[in-house]
Amino acid sequence: MASDPETQSADLASATSTAVRLACRSGAITGCTAGMANGYVQGNLAVFPERIADNFRLFAERNPKSCPVIGESKPGRRDIPELGLDLDIATDLPLYRVWRSGELVDELPDVRSVWRDDLVAFVIGCSFSFEEAMLEAGLPLRHVERGTHVAMYRTNIACAPAGPFAGPMVVSMRPLTPAQAIQAVQVTARYPQVHGAPVHLARPDLIGITDLQQVDYGDPVPVGPNEIPVFWACGVTPQSVIAAARPDFAITHAPGCMLVTDRLNTEFATG
Amino acid sequence: MASDPETQSADLASATSTAVRLACRSGAITGCTAGMANGYVQGNLAVFPERIADNFRLFAERNPKSCPVIGESKPGRRDIPELGLDLDIATDLPLYRVWRSGELVDELPDVRSVWRDDLVAFVIGCSFSFEEAMLEAGLPLRHVERGTHVAMYRTNIACAPAGPFAGPMVVSMRPLTPAQAIQAVQVTARYPQVHGAPVHLARPDLIGITDLQQVDYGDPVPVGPNEIPVFWACGVTPQSVIAAARPDFAITHAPGCMLVTDRLNTEFATG
Repeated sequence: MASDPETQSADLASATSTAVRLACRSGAITGCTAGMANGYVQGNLAVFPERIADNFRLFAERNPKSCPVIGESKPGRRDIPELGLDLDIATDLPLYRVWRSGELVDELPDVRSVWRDDLVAFVIGCSFSFEEAMLEAGLPLRHVERGTHVAMYRTNIACAPAGPFAGPMVVSMRPLTPAQAIQAVQVTARYPQVHGAPVHLARPDLIGITDLQQVDYGDPVPVGPNEIPVFWACGVTPQSVIAAARPDFAITHAPGCMLVTDRLNTEFATG
Repeated sequence: MASDPETQSADLASATSTAVRLACRSGAITGCTAGMANGYVQGNLAVFPERIADNFRLFAERNPKSCPVIGESKPGRRDIPELGLDLDIATDLPLYRVWRSGELVDELPDVRSVWRDDLVAFVIGCSFSFEEAMLEAGLPLRHVERGTHVAMYRTNIACAPAGPFAGPMVVSMRPLTPAQAIQAVQVTARYPQVHGAPVHLARPDLIGITDLQQVDYGDPVPVGPNEIPVFWACGVTPQSVIAAARPDFAITHAPGCMLVTDRLNTEFATG
């Protein structure tokens, strides 16, 4: 990778998925993967002991809008061949979160030191895929324009529970005019494996959000006088569920620090 | 047709398009065609002298959301073969409006007495088609539940002009919860020839509607505390444009009193 930040950014945008994973593995990339390896699917990560992995799989199946699983490892294995060649789930994300009994106990640039032979990794589709489609359709993304993380909120929408896994759906929010929101529904509905159509719009109060400036994850963005907030189910939902379900051990990605896979966004478009 | 009103209503719902047209022609049907000949496409009517018909055709092409033309007569002819066998545009609607210099001067059950050899009839797709799809998707339609005409409003959205034809878009409004609105966008987007996806939602003030209870056409409906108003482009737009463009002569349907065609709603579904 080039050392000049602007050159590096352009290089990373056009980099292959493998190049980004290797850069994460080597420690050259330590932050948000938004805008890297354009065209490739990025994924949220949730890792659990095998003992409760069946419960999480069922939880994901029951909550496909927030937890669309696009890949899963065999117990103890750090590769997921369907998502990438030369892929090591314990080193190839920029930053990880380690959870014990539902508490966030550490953020680590790789998790080899805490990896266990009984862990199962789930990779969950991510909104970066549909954001690429939104940009191609000419729709604005306020957080991208501002260079911040997307605004995320815990809602009062209960996920369908499975075993210990239960809790509120987390949503991401993008401000759009009503006409843009209608177009965004149509564009993102074509990507059901990466959260798909919005789950809510216009009335944050109805899903338990009293102040849009008070985010639970990410960064707030202004909503213009001619705009409405549009909400999509978010792959950070497992982190909110971990806090509620308190499994003895879990690993996730740090918000924004995704796994870049070899799958293409275009593979996920339907219709 | 049976004489008992309830039997008649059930008969008309399952009647063929031809049966409904003949009943209009004979004077047995004189009111709203909503709910009749289920499965068949109904159309809005706009009739102009040939001299300005080219302008209206261009106007419709430039405003496909509000004026999606599904059929057009040859000058002076009262048949439109592509929309139905045994179809007489001057007799087969329940009620017509006659306009002179932009003023509504008459409502007539047939327009043979004012028909002219230079008239061209345009039939424009109608929301009844996508409403059928909404009902099949389990979405509620408040005006149907209440047995009233849909609520319609003139907006501050300017149609793209063509010759003398210019004026505001008319929209129909259906109250839905935000989640239902998102589903309704996806369902109705599949019907581009019958107005397609909504043009606006949630914020009536942004399109010049200050009071949802003050309709310009049809009947008002209550919007629940957990609902938002969702707005679709409406085939009544030509009537608002006639009032603004003041052509010397025009005929339209009376709102709700449509032409029932032999085309099937399913023919108009895409994707």
